[in-house]
Amino acid sequence: MHNVSTTQQFIGFDASYESSQIVLVGAPFDGTTSFRPGTRFAPSVIRPDSYGLETYSPYLDLDLEDYSLCDIGDIELPFGNTKNALKEIQTTITQIVNDNKKPLMIGGEHLVSLPALQSLYEKHPDLCIIHLDAHTDLRDDYMGEKLSHASVIRRAWDFLGDHRIYQFGIRSGTKEEFNWAKEHTYLNPFNLETFEDITIKLKDRPVYLTIDLDVLDPSIFPGTGTPEPGGICFNTLISALKSLTCLNHLVGADIVELSPHYDPSGVSTAVCCKVVREVALLLAHK
Amino acid sequence: MHNVSTTQQFIGFDASYESSQIVLVGAPFDGTTSFRPGTRFAPSVIRPDSYGLETYSPYLDLDLEDYSLCDIGDIELPFGNTKNALKEIQTTITQIVNDNKKPLMIGGEHLVSLPALQSLYEKHPDLCIIHLDAHTDLRDDYMGEKLSHASVIRRAWDFLGDHRIYQFGIRSGTKEEFNWAKEHTYLNPFNLETFEDITIKLKDRPVYLTIDLDVLDPSIFPGTGTPEPGGICFNTLISALKSLTCLNHLVGADIVELSPHYDPSGVSTAVCCKVVREVALLLAHK
Amino acid sequence: MHNVSTTQQFIGFDASYESSQIVLVGAPFDGTTSFRPGTRFAPSVIRPDSYGLETYSPYLDLDLEDYSLCDIGDIELPFGNTKNALKEIQTTITQIVNDNKKPLMIGGEHLVSLPALQSLYEKHPDLCIIHLDAHTDLRDDYMGEKLSHASVIRRAWDFLGDHRIYQFGIRSGTKEEFNWAKEHTYLNPFNLETFEDITIKLKDRPVYLTIDLDVLDPSIFPGTGTPEPGGICFNTLISALKSLTCLNHLVGADIVELSPHYDPSGVSTAVCCKVVREVALLLAHK
Amino acid sequence: MHNVSTTQQFIGFDASYESSQIVLVGAPFDGTTSFRPGTRFAPSVIRPDSYGLETYSPYLDLDLEDYSLCDIGDIELPFGNTKNALKEIQTTITQIVNDNKKPLMIGGEHLVSLPALQSLYEKHPDLCIIHLDAHTDLRDDYMGEKLSHASVIRRAWDFLGDHRIYQFGIRSGTKEEFNWAKEHTYLNPFNLETFEDITIKLKDRPVYLTIDLDVLDPSIFPGTGTPEPGGICFNTLISALKSLTCLNHLVGADIVELSPHYDPSGVSTAVCCKVVREVALLLAHK
Amino acid sequence: MHNVSTTQQFIGFDASYESSQIVLVGAPFDGTTSFRPGTRFAPSVIRPDSYGLETYSPYLDLDLEDYSLCDIGDIELPFGNTKNALKEIQTTITQIVNDNKKPLMIGGEHLVSLPALQSLYEKHPDLCIIHLDAHTDLRDDYMGEKLSHASVIRRAWDFLGDHRIYQFGIRSGTKEEFNWAKEHTYLNPFNLETFEDITIKLKDRPVYLTIDLDVLDPSIFPGTGTPEPGGICFNTLISALKSLTCLNHLVGADIVELSPHYDPSGVSTAVCCKVVREVALLLAHK
Amino acid sequence: MHNVSTTQQFIGFDASYESSQIVLVGAPFDGTTSFRPGTRFAPSVIRPDSYGLETYSPYLDLDLEDYSLCDIGDIELPFGNTKNALKEIQTTITQIVNDNKKPLMIGGEHLVSLPALQSLYEKHPDLCIIHLDAHTDLRDDYMGEKLSHASVIRRAWDFLGDHRIYQFGIRSGTKEEFNWAKEHTYLNPFNLETFEDITIKLKDRPVYLTIDLDVLDPSIFPGTGTPEPGGICFNTLISALKSLTCLNHLVGADIVELSPHYDPSGVSTAVCCKVVREVALLLAHK
Repeated sequence: MHNVSTTQQFIGFDASYESSQIVLVGAPFDGTTSFRPGTRFAPSVIRPDSYGLETYSPYLDLDLEDYSLCDIGDIELPFGNTKNALKEIQTTITQIVNDNKKPLMIGGEHLVSLPALQSLYEKHPDLCIIHLDAHTDLRDDYMGEKLSHASVIRRAWDFLGDHRIYQFGIRSGTKEEFNWAKEHTYLNPFNLETFEDITIKLKDRPVYLTIDLDVLDPSIFPGTGTPEPGGICFNTLISALKSLTCLNHLVGADIVELSPHYDPSGVSTAVCCKVVREVALLLAHK
Repeated sequence: MHNVSTTQQFIGFDASYESSQIVLVGAPFDGTTSFRPGTRFAPSVIRPDSYGLETYSPYLDLDLEDYSLCDIGDIELPFGNTKNALKEIQTTITQIVNDNKKPLMIGGEHLVSLPALQSLYEKHPDLCIIHLDAHTDLRDDYMGEKLSHASVIRRAWDFLGDHRIYQFGIRSGTKEEFNWAKEHTYLNPFNLETFEDITIKLKDRPVYLTIDLDVLDPSIFPGTGTPEPGGICFNTLISALKSLTCLNHLVGADIVELSPHYDPSGVSTAVCCKVVREVALLLAHK
Repeated sequence: MHNVSTTQQFIGFDASYESSQIVLVGAPFDGTTSFRPGTRFAPSVIRPDSYGLETYSPYLDLDLEDYSLCDIGDIELPFGNTKNALKEIQTTITQIVNDNKKPLMIGGEHLVSLPALQSLYEKHPDLCIIHLDAHTDLRDDYMGEKLSHASVIRRAWDFLGDHRIYQFGIRSGTKEEFNWAKEHTYLNPFNLETFEDITIKLKDRPVYLTIDLDVLDPSIFPGTGTPEPGGICFNTLISALKSLTCLNHLVGADIVELSPHYDPSGVSTAVCCKVVREVALLLAHK
Repeated sequence: MHNVSTTQQFIGFDASYESSQIVLVGAPFDGTTSFRPGTRFAPSVIRPDSYGLETYSPYLDLDLEDYSLCDIGDIELPFGNTKNALKEIQTTITQIVNDNKKPLMIGGEHLVSLPALQSLYEKHPDLCIIHLDAHTDLRDDYMGEKLSHASVIRRAWDFLGDHRIYQFGIRSGTKEEFNWAKEHTYLNPFNLETFEDITIKLKDRPVYLTIDLDVLDPSIFPGTGTPEPGGICFNTLISALKSLTCLNHLVGADIVELSPHYDPSGVSTAVCCKVVREVALLLAHK
Repeated sequence: MHNVSTTQQFIGFDASYESSQIVLVGAPFDGTTSFRPGTRFAPSVIRPDSYGLETYSPYLDLDLEDYSLCDIGDIELPFGNTKNALKEIQTTITQIVNDNKKPLMIGGEHLVSLPALQSLYEKHPDLCIIHLDAHTDLRDDYMGEKLSHASVIRRAWDFLGDHRIYQFGIRSGTKEEFNWAKEHTYLNPFNLETFEDITIKLKDRPVYLTIDLDVLDPSIFPGTGTPEPGGICFNTLISALKSLTCLNHLVGADIVELSPHYDPSGVSTAVCCKVVREVALLLAHK
Repeated sequence: MHNVSTTQQFIGFDASYESSQIVLVGAPFDGTTSFRPGTRFAPSVIRPDSYGLETYSPYLDLDLEDYSLCDIGDIELPFGNTKNALKEIQTTITQIVNDNKKPLMIGGEHLVSLPALQSLYEKHPDLCIIHLDAHTDLRDDYMGEKLSHASVIRRAWDFLGDHRIYQFGIRSGTKEEFNWAKEHTYLNPFNLETFEDITIKLKDRPVYLTIDLDVLDPSIFPGTGTPEPGGICFNTLISALKSLTCLNHLVGADIVELSPHYDPSGVSTAVCCKVVREVALLLAHK
């Protein structure tokens, strides 16, 4: 009907899968969350709220409407079975990658990055990761579980190895994790001071960007499982994203850990929507 | 993709428009709300939350999956212009009616019933209304405005005339409204005592059902603009709906006044979803 | 200015003090609350929200607009000094009583009834109390304090003595309190079964009505300090209030224990407003 | 120190493990929850809020202080591994049972009942279950997973077999589940009409009581994962519990599915606390 | 009565209309809000919460108690009729201006600035606007409506013309709006960098100050219809306001877009109250 | 039992009283709070939420696990009697001090600092106070009450005298308070600019640290009774705490004014937990 619309896609992501270079997909998994669960609801809340956004970014001076982008919805995941859930995610991301498209995945908890990284790594064996987060995520296991949101970067290291992982904004972890990082990853604690230098260094490498939104200060992003005071502010994140325009091979990205039920004012969801817009433009404009 | 899904439709409403006899549509209008606005968000919240429902109703022993039902999304409406908004709604409902389908409209505030009633009245000049509500909605105007959620049934009377409107559960209004009702409508205050008798009386008439969910007690339905303590409980409403199975010509229905931002626990949304399921089954099974 | 209004008074309470027989006053005290404080905010939230009410009661078929009622605002109370706060309340209520007006006090916690009862008792030495509550409020002290919301009825008994206090809806207390009540008060536990009989018995006595709104089930009245599941529903309370029309000397009343910050949907406030309307009409119509 | 206290135990559960016949334990697991997670927080919120309760029950005229009861805290559970979590629960409950004590387990989601039932079944091979719930919980699997909150009673049937399971208050499920129940369990839909008859029939059998609190109407119990309007009211549940005093062998119980983060007013937590008190007294008084 | 008070006015605004140079008035209109409505409640919540403020500003070293200020309450507005609502606002502001007083208007949505600007423009034909906002508000229409919160500054330009409008903090709009601004207004995006220079330039011009509080970052001001991450912090706003002390003709001001129902912690309301105090002192001290 | 745990203590505070040098104790008093009460709940919410923290501080490079720390629970306090409540607090703190341990007290409102200061002052007659706060807390009385959260520092001055009190971050008070401070305390308004200088100056003095968490901006700490926009950010507070490592005699500390019911996202509680960890490490490492 002429005057009827549904808002099932993220704003500006209305192209067909075939014609799109960027594919947004939700991974509503929060099965290993140790504190406050609920990131499973993130993809379903950002779609309607994205219509509070403009498609134009005054930061990047780019507009979603100038690109072909699609939103294929959410991956259907079983409850209570971590391995099978990760397998489903990997199947989807691998297909996107094999179709020569770039995935933009919305979590869910941070563990959803693992299957995406595995898919991208198969395609790009020299893959590097830029990782923004409040937490190291470098535990070898969490209460005996190897597959945990607190271990996701450590699991990625299992196949990527040393000197491929660049961590920023980290302000929480065990003493062991911080020590382990000194030998195996690049870890810039508390802030993004060296972010621009690293982006320049990586400009010709295939890079995957994983943003745990709890890298932001909980003043602007309260809606997350484990809020960590002392994070960066929104404009610092935006500046960092702008510096990523120098990357020639940003091959995929994810934005994780929005937990909308801990966001009574809706501000965290608004933050997530804007970060999705900026990252989509970064993926698209080159 | 095989394992990806979006939940843009109400559960069980996944048929095509062409093949469906029942058409669910959202009318996200709350422009004349005098106390707490926000019913505009009702259609967009009930769709994802409907997946917490089963498609099977143990009350009616009927299943949404046994019928062809479609959800065409929400009508696009301007902000700040009541007349134009009502015109858009009427256009959509008229098309559904002209296509020989039954509309199931989700408000929005109660004023959205007016254009739907106008559309149905054109098709069925002997139309009757069954109206469940906490409020009479019989003011001639509200602060000078003729088009108001507080006047919607009075405006319907303007063209339907006397003895066509059956009101139940009413427990709030001015003294004048209650007096006016004595001459022009059938008004059963406070409860649904005579509901079954009336449904039998109307069984061969074309009937439109309009449910202002604030007919329910705010204990079970807090999420509404003007909560009125002293309403009916959910099981009373279900029993009433069951008695509607005797109607041979239920030609359309609406369910209005869910205001989800005043429903912090999500229970009002769950109520609305279940009422939508029951009403859809009533519309479909005959 | 012609088109400007403030809503500082409860709806319908816009007469002058001099011309009014009924005087509404707020007593925003919650200093002895043992669990969740916040009843101090009740008077200030019910005033603006009262404008969501009609002035006409379909239950009593009476209208606030047909009476002269005034709202003198809130009593200014010190913080952290229970005795001085009670003294301030007593001063205000005594003046109202001495001016031959009936006080309708809005709490605050239940302890605010004590000074009001003292004022009324001085005027009416044969005063009786009708007390609706979830709790006995009959402790001799609470953690050593004699002046406590949990002791208010016991303190009233100190001067009223036996056979003056009629308690209804009580469903929580120590075993000692229930036993003490057997000898000193009339206590109808759990519900209002004998309420009507008692009102008939008291019809020619001076009666003070104190409604702790937690007598209601927390489904309809969650916004209170100590919610007690298993209470009466709103319509039961309304029926009880209707039966009070037989009283010839209802000399004052209070409505206490609304704690609006535990009422995220606003329903408890709506309940309180409607009870205020009904009680005001009871006080006024004779 | 003389004037310092911690409130780590449920009120009245302050005896030693050795001296207690009733052992309260938390099972903070919500790993298979399909809609809104968060029942993991239930045990930790009911402990401090239980101090808003009296230890005396006017319903049963019994007092927690007259019994030796202990609260051993929460079982430590891994995240993201359903099998291991259930194993941990079973270990704890088996130890309690082997020590000839009665477990009173607080969920968590309903799946936590499964290992408890297994432990009790080993001790009492003729065990019966009284099951209060809104949902049948009889699916053979949920999205492929056999171990699911939606399958817990079906899994219990796997070892208990026909005619051991008595279900009450059920108002949601697939058509298949309701049909399956007709042959394999006793299912009283919607309400508790036959509850008393069944308790008499079971009075000499070993009985395990499992209360999914969503059997209550969401008006009084909004704080749960999948609220189902149309449930029983609190007083109906209390009456049913009172009729359980006729059971001579109530060997254990659980109370599950409180999800406190969906309970902004705290009322659901108050309900859960009171149900724990009543069930503890039922377990203790014989 | 000596110890009774009502808090119907904003703190410190207790002078008579006649004796006051500054007149605070509420304009509770949100009829064209396109995303989350509710700014209509702002005036009624800031009055009681203003009593959490001191009257003394340590920023300006000025005290409300040293000036004659009045609060005339809220303008009564119809619902669902934008034109009539704006007409009512204009009537009130024109009267204030004609009485040689300065209006300090509290929104409501931003469209309420339009009639105020028209009133002031009639009095001061060389009026300039200082506009703090997250959004350009420069659309020619919004979904066909010329009178919209998203068009309010464009509508003001219709009569003010070029080089009269100074916009700061803007970080959201369409590409077209940003381009249009380059020719017709002065627009300082993202921050307030050039604010002080502009205030010096305007020091002898009649200036109207319109503060859309969403210019603030949503971390400190979540309670608004369309939160835009990346805004200025509170101290930056305070510094800007301090630099306005150089203006010799600040002839009126408004503070708009507080939507208190999206402010569960009450912080946005506290922010609004403090901004009202500072702006009132700016209007008063010269 | 081997796999069961309770979380009644703050994380890392699991040593015995005898073996500990630092003793954490809750003082759940909010009896003189003038605006929004509820700080009484702070100690009980920070204990379970502290398990979302790591024991390791990357700011101080110290770990709670390397020290012997104990949490003795909350002081039992009467309701409605300020003097007795303060006496109970003083008794407890005096015992801790006499046992040669350092108290780390969690409020409650700020008035709880007074008895702690009295205890410490008896032991250390040359005691100085470092006071972080949004408010001066220097009133001689508040509505006639000498014992008030708004007077606590003034009451401390009564026995400490001039030049012992160092106040930082102050941004609210009466003009009289600011003037009084000029002669009797050291007051650094708005920020912590001179904090480090002062800590160096005090390095050999016995110092008590009292942190009213409302010194933080309400963006990061909304959960407090009287939020004051314009405060310091979390990292500024952390830097200040780091500079306290130079103190040789930090003899006690308190952290007050968390009001968790105004913290719907839980972020304020997370802030409080992290500040407790940092202050505990400061007290312990020397």
